[in-house]
Amino acid sequence: MGDLEIRAATADDLPAIVAMLADDPLGAQRESPDDLTPYRTALARLAADPNQHLVVAVREGRVIGTLQLTIIPGLSHRGATRALIEAVRIHADERGSGLGSKLIEWAIDTSRQLGCRMVQLTSDKTRTDAHRFYERLGFTASHEGFKLRL
Amino acid sequence: MGDLEIRAATADDLPAIVAMLADDPLGAQRESPDDLTPYRTALARLAADPNQHLVVAVREGRVIGTLQLTIIPGLSHRGATRALIEAVRIHADERGSGLGSKLIEWAIDTSRQLGCRMVQLTSDKTRTDAHRFYERLGFTASHEGFKLRL
Repeated sequence: MGDLEIRAATADDLPAIVAMLADDPLGAQRESPDDLTPYRTALARLAADPNQHLVVAVREGRVIGTLQLTIIPGLSHRGATRALIEAVRIHADERGSGLGSKLIEWAIDTSRQLGCRMVQLTSDKTRTDAHRFYERLGFTASHEGFKLRL
Repeated sequence: MGDLEIRAATADDLPAIVAMLADDPLGAQRESPDDLTPYRTALARLAADPNQHLVVAVREGRVIGTLQLTIIPGLSHRGATRALIEAVRIHADERGSGLGSKLIEWAIDTSRQLGCRMVQLTSDKTRTDAHRFYERLGFTASHEGFKLRL
């Protein structure tokens, strides 16, 4: 296996990223890999925001993972900045390879370098394997995660 | 009771906001209302970020509530933008008055106006009253909320 690179996502990575978002029990119902237009618009917005870090994991030129890290300043916890992890996806061929841990560890290291005091994420209650994965990486399921669709 | 105003927080509001953050079973252990320096730094950072909306609820010139709304672009859900609610606090004198609902409804309305497709938040598992409150407002506790302190 070649070296793993974790770098900022570009427009050229969109087909591979969206394919990963769609190749998922929950994502299959809500993504449109045949029409990348809404994703291109969103990527431009992410690229313009210095608090957004949308990255891909690449090995031998192939996009095999993705994650979005958002840096969120705030007043609570004595003015602590926190980081939010969203949209973690690993290519089906790479699951169980340790790549997920490497991506999350990248997110934790980057959050620390950017002065964050906390990293947080939510995971659908049906994703019980993911819950064990995050607990192994040191996260605590201390909160209820509430969502409201508009 | 006078009219309620919900507006962007300013530096003059900081003592009242931090007092509310500290007047809370969890916040009492982690805030420093006697030293506002870290909060001033954080407020400057929030004010410089167009995706951050830190607001206060004011009645008759008195700050009686606060909430932070973060607008987060993203690729998943066909490039959907989402909103994150953090640091909801209601002054002790005003709890049970319906002010919490008004603040959350403000956040939902603002999120919709800004093109968000989802509003999300996490709530500590010990805050069971808050959970019922969010469910009454239409939120679903569909996710586990994981945190990692750095």
